[in-house]
Amino acid sequence: MFEQHRGTLDEATSAIAQRGHWSAYPESPSPRVYGEGAAERGREAFESLLGKPYPLEQPGTGSWIGAERSPFGIDLGVTYPQPLVEELIAAAKGALPAWRDAGPLARALTCVEIVDRINKRSFELANAVQHTTGQAFVMAFQAGGPHAQDRALEAIAYGFAAMTASAATSRWEKPAKGGPLVMDKRFTVVPRGVALVIGCNTFPTWNAYPGLFASLVTGNPVIVKPHPGAVLPLAITVSIAREVLEQAGFDPALVSLAVEEGQGLAKTLATHPDVRVVDFTGSTEFGDWLELNARQALVHTEKAGVNTVVVDSTGSWRGMLGNLAFSLALYSGQMCTAPQNILVPAAGIETDEGHKSFDEVAAGLAAAVARLLGDDARAVELTGAIVNPGVLARLAAAPSLGEVVLESRALKHPAFPDAVVRTPVIVKVAPGEREVYGREHFGPISFVIPTGSTRESLDLLRETITARGALTASVYSTSDDVLDQAERAAVDAGVNLSCNLTGGVFVNQSAAFSDYHGSGANPAATASLTDPGYVAGRFHVVQSRRPA
Amino acid sequence: MFEQHRGTLDEATSAIAQRGHWSAYPESPSPRVYGEGAAERGREAFESLLGKPYPLEQPGTGSWIGAERSPFGIDLGVTYPQPLVEELIAAAKGALPAWRDAGPLARALTCVEIVDRINKRSFELANAVQHTTGQAFVMAFQAGGPHAQDRALEAIAYGFAAMTASAATSRWEKPAKGGPLVMDKRFTVVPRGVALVIGCNTFPTWNAYPGLFASLVTGNPVIVKPHPGAVLPLAITVSIAREVLEQAGFDPALVSLAVEEGQGLAKTLATHPDVRVVDFTGSTEFGDWLELNARQALVHTEKAGVNTVVVDSTGSWRGMLGNLAFSLALYSGQMCTAPQNILVPAAGIETDEGHKSFDEVAAGLAAAVARLLGDDARAVELTGAIVNPGVLARLAAAPSLGEVVLESRALKHPAFPDAVVRTPVIVKVAPGEREVYGREHFGPISFVIPTGSTRESLDLLRETITARGALTASVYSTSDDVLDQAERAAVDAGVNLSCNLTGGVFVNQSAAFSDYHGSGANPAATASLTDPGYVAGRFHVVQSRRPA
Repeated sequence: MFEQHRGTLDEATSAIAQRGHWSAYPESPSPRVYGEGAAERGREAFESLLGKPYPLEQPGTGSWIGAERSPFGIDLGVTYPQPLVEELIAAAKGALPAWRDAGPLARALTCVEIVDRINKRSFELANAVQHTTGQAFVMAFQAGGPHAQDRALEAIAYGFAAMTASAATSRWEKPAKGGPLVMDKRFTVVPRGVALVIGCNTFPTWNAYPGLFASLVTGNPVIVKPHPGAVLPLAITVSIAREVLEQAGFDPALVSLAVEEGQGLAKTLATHPDVRVVDFTGSTEFGDWLELNARQALVHTEKAGVNTVVVDSTGSWRGMLGNLAFSLALYSGQMCTAPQNILVPAAGIETDEGHKSFDEVAAGLAAAVARLLGDDARAVELTGAIVNPGVLARLAAAPSLGEVVLESRALKHPAFPDAVVRTPVIVKVAPGEREVYGREHFGPISFVIPTGSTRESLDLLRETITARGALTASVYSTSDDVLDQAERAAVDAGVNLSCNLTGGVFVNQSAAFSDYHGSGANPAATASLTDPGYVAGRFHVVQSRRPA
Repeated sequence: MFEQHRGTLDEATSAIAQRGHWSAYPESPSPRVYGEGAAERGREAFESLLGKPYPLEQPGTGSWIGAERSPFGIDLGVTYPQPLVEELIAAAKGALPAWRDAGPLARALTCVEIVDRINKRSFELANAVQHTTGQAFVMAFQAGGPHAQDRALEAIAYGFAAMTASAATSRWEKPAKGGPLVMDKRFTVVPRGVALVIGCNTFPTWNAYPGLFASLVTGNPVIVKPHPGAVLPLAITVSIAREVLEQAGFDPALVSLAVEEGQGLAKTLATHPDVRVVDFTGSTEFGDWLELNARQALVHTEKAGVNTVVVDSTGSWRGMLGNLAFSLALYSGQMCTAPQNILVPAAGIETDEGHKSFDEVAAGLAAAVARLLGDDARAVELTGAIVNPGVLARLAAAPSLGEVVLESRALKHPAFPDAVVRTPVIVKVAPGEREVYGREHFGPISFVIPTGSTRESLDLLRETITARGALTASVYSTSDDVLDQAERAAVDAGVNLSCNLTGGVFVNQSAAFSDYHGSGANPAATASLTDPGYVAGRFHVVQSRRPA
């Protein structure tokens, strides 16, 4: 069954080893790729879900709840089954043995079929992602659709590779007096237990799929607990998974949805003795809580950090400013990978357009952002909307943190009059103000910080990221020596580094199969998407041996 | 450097994937293998160490301590540097960057060189293992020497394979309007930090080497904290490692010794913020403590369990009894893999020598053990000596736990008059007495338990091992159906199973490169020697990317 995906699985397994460019799911929402009318049908499918109970039947259903409101100003009005925890977990446990016994290949191919069907519903999912996260449509399509699907396939490939790295059977023949000792051995992959995936508000699919599919492919039933504000994309995902599993002859209880409105369901699930794997994306506070309290489980967290840009010099003044401006503006900086701290020597920098003082760099960046977002109608397609009131509150507080270099402004969305849209604020902060820039200000908030030198900038990068973590770091320099020093600082701090991005690659984007997302080597995350450590602990191998 | 080990590394890497029989270090102590006079020179080298300070210079040395006494009745009189913790850790941290920067291949080859030199000192180590653990000489040679060295090489191979599974560099070329986006990427393996290995009393090398070499090959400096009763084998190991590292141009502080006399040094080290990996073999109590308290570290533990034998029927009555008797007698059952609970249907079993009642099975086993250990001089070469007073106390308490089937007796060692040697006790216990057989009685203590049926035996196996863990399980049956049911029970309980061992393979022995030791899937251990999960968390990958 699903043997047609064998080629995709093989290509994905090869891609994770080679780490060049590869993708299984086209990122272009063009009708030439996804077919005429696909966008319209997806939108209709999304709209048909609004204002009613979501069609999901699963064991252990209590009342129906849900209160999602689009950052673009629409109440979704969808309700979901509130789970009866013990029944949900019991159903998951009951589904485990047959899924375990199916073996790595059958599980991997079934998982690819799930992702394949998710891909076919990318437009429906794009609308659901847009109206739960505030992402503009094209980003919601790409990041919430094909890019998330690629990350899912990547996790499947890692899991499959890890489970099949050693032989499933072997004959052991040891020379001995009186003839060889001969044993036949069988090695069975067994899952850890029930897995929990705790989704986030901003990237409900992209951040949940790796954990979901890494756990599922390695044999663990998965309970998906979405952020209360971003349920619909994961509800659609869960229903697709259940549909495929059932058609393949498995118990659909292998994947289930656990919705809450903020009553602490995540804590209850994460500390349940039968929950043995937890994947979480969200706040440092709750991530730390999980690491401390979910003792019975393997816990992978992605938390907050202080993403840092070191500006030393550039061979492309305009390219640098344009690239940085895009990174700050994209989804209004509401990305765990968006730059926050921009370190520039107080004495200024050398560029292909001559020396630029610190103030010229700050002003140049402000101007580039202002230019990029000058036209409201075009700007909203880049910034999307503000995901929740927490971001707005931080944005309101930002000007008090230093000297404002660029003010945030409210944009009017031409299509959604109630959308809450804001452009980035840029604040100049002194290097001594570590309590300000040494923590994450999630949202369209960045700091330009004058330093004594690039060496001091690199020391600051090393120190702040070692202490507080980061998902990305970036450096601009025309000096190979500085680039090497930056690489060394990044290796010391355990953060992934991008050098001299002046074109169409942005520091806040990572490509599945080639770029790691997070490293696990600094406090921002214990996990990396995806490396062998991300999948290895999700299963064990149990052997039996018999005389041949 | 050490390029001569490339072939060994390649063969080991292939062996862990194939899992047939393979070994790099010959297990025979014969002069034909290790050379004429090797045994004598090893003994002399051991004796030359006695009664004086051990020649080890390392940073952070306080006073010299040590009070090892051989279970064969000799005071070793060796003292070791008591570490100043902060200085030892600071030295390890200082040594890290150059070791990290050397890269996976250089580290792996250097590690193989260390193991190679350890191999050349196998006789010296055998004496040190014998006189700290109480193992008989041949066992001390094999388990403490070549078998431990094979487990070390296996861990090196797993680490090397995991670090090199993905490309170290790649070119990423993404088609785009206006020409492809092209990035050059570099992927650097970075270690987690300082690693700690906590050794045990009974297998100081065999149980410590996997963690030591898994951490070292992945770039982590390692502090080795031996059990206070079994320091010498690890002191020799540490000095060899330091010698090789220094000769290879690295800081010898990459491997250091932390000796104590029971002042809680393990707790201090294991909870130090700079200690990021802990490997432990020992009691469930301290293993659980580490898992709960060493929160800053990745913790791998091997603890206690209730190893179980299910006897259903056999095609070799004498083979079964002889094999089981050997497993009970070997090193007086002082192995984490030795059988404890022997489940036999109360109605008896069918054999190639006709029906045997439960009492006949119990008596047959008792007779087989008594016969095997009938001659004191030969018996001590199998049983060795009792490692510590804790084992003696449990042995003394065992007869009160049920009906004694075979009494333990004291043996006189012909060569060591003060050696403490005991043969196994076998006690019949009712299946209702779970509080007796449901916990580990480490030492020469086993229980024969009459059950309602083999089905009840398998249920008991599943339940007790799920609840309390086990490192081994074993089944005897002439029925394929029963063997399949036993495999299923073992998979459910997450325990490695041996079927119908009647010859020269014993349930308490596992072969590196083929058999897993522990599974990580039941409460006896969170780790398996060695699987991908054992090495994966010890390092991360940090990437950098630049426009090509």
